[in-house]
Amino acid sequence: MSAAEDFGLEDVEPASSAAGKPLTKRGAATRTKLLEAAEHVFADLGYHEASIVKITERAGIGLGTFYLYFDSKQAIFEALVVDLNRRVRHSMAEAMEGAPNRIEAERAGFAGFFRFTAQHPALYRVVREAEFVSPEMLRLHYTRIVEGYRAGLEKARAAGEVRDVDPEVTAWALMGLGELLGMRYILWERDADGNRPEAMPAAVFEQMIQFINHGLAPREEQ
Amino acid sequence: MSAAEDFGLEDVEPASSAAGKPLTKRGAATRTKLLEAAEHVFADLGYHEASIVKITERAGIGLGTFYLYFDSKQAIFEALVVDLNRRVRHSMAEAMEGAPNRIEAERAGFAGFFRFTAQHPALYRVVREAEFVSPEMLRLHYTRIVEGYRAGLEKARAAGEVRDVDPEVTAWALMGLGELLGMRYILWERDADGNRPEAMPAAVFEQMIQFINHGLAPREEQ
Repeated sequence: MSAAEDFGLEDVEPASSAAGKPLTKRGAATRTKLLEAAEHVFADLGYHEASIVKITERAGIGLGTFYLYFDSKQAIFEALVVDLNRRVRHSMAEAMEGAPNRIEAERAGFAGFFRFTAQHPALYRVVREAEFVSPEMLRLHYTRIVEGYRAGLEKARAAGEVRDVDPEVTAWALMGLGELLGMRYILWERDADGNRPEAMPAAVFEQMIQFINHGLAPREEQ
Repeated sequence: MSAAEDFGLEDVEPASSAAGKPLTKRGAATRTKLLEAAEHVFADLGYHEASIVKITERAGIGLGTFYLYFDSKQAIFEALVVDLNRRVRHSMAEAMEGAPNRIEAERAGFAGFFRFTAQHPALYRVVREAEFVSPEMLRLHYTRIVEGYRAGLEKARAAGEVRDVDPEVTAWALMGLGELLGMRYILWERDADGNRPEAMPAAVFEQMIQFINHGLAPREEQ
């Protein structure tokens, strides 16, 4: 099982300029710098307070250069959703690679997701804003992650590693529970210095994994 | 088991005016009208495009009257979150009342949640906007729903109806999976005329309930 393939990470469209031309290595690095700045600016200020000037200032890149890469604030916002989404799937797939069975893959995939959440708190905020700024991007984000789960569940079901579940519905359920547990036990937690934990508390993670394992394990129907 | 009590619906603060005075029956009706209009305006336009004038116009209520009830756009937004939250908990608790056991209560509670989601698509959008407009309201919304689940799960665990789960973690997991399944299979579904379904497809609902039942059922630990 290739988790990278399940999560659609094999055929990545190369980054391009605002005019749709392929980027040089240097161009790609500048585009990445703009996206990194956008991640912070959108997360800190929200879409409406954010501006192209604030993004270019934070990136240390001239305003004119911005427009070589993106047409508008909305364009860089959408590119940011695509980029964060690709990276969170990468983080999950990388963690899952080589797992000996579905249960270990599940455990590793969620650990990858929560690690990314801790490192990129912008993910949740940007996805929530997409509801208003660009609803297609909200759908793209969830749909692409679900697709990775679904593919893995289908194979596990065929191999008899999970009971006869609907892989699509189950994939949405798993993503939903991971999302809210990540919000509650990573994003909402702060220590005395205001720092977020780097991972979910082990006891919470185990509870979640047990719930999933019981929910999916093959067994006599009741 | 009183679901209404679990969901904290026994001690409701009475609605008050902007100055904090209790409302007459007529005053309460006007306040409700403003909240109903706000639900549509915030859901249709988003917080930033919404305005007090648009809310009062939709409600057919004078601008001056608005300020007898709410101080600002933010104040009515926050009151709307509190109101939608109270109503979705009411919808869940009402559906759960009298259920003979935890499994039936779960089934009824989710049915109540999805019915409310179908009737009030604003719920999701308003909660997502709260991330930026009023983060405390986002927390309040989730925390109050979780509290109802948690209380029910604790009793079910004590009665041996569910295995030895952490009620708090499990409550967040259940809310998460319900939220995303509601988004995917109610809010995102439209028929040819653009209308949303009134409930979740039965097959999807059954998959979800089976997953939860398997996840929670008392059994030998593996």
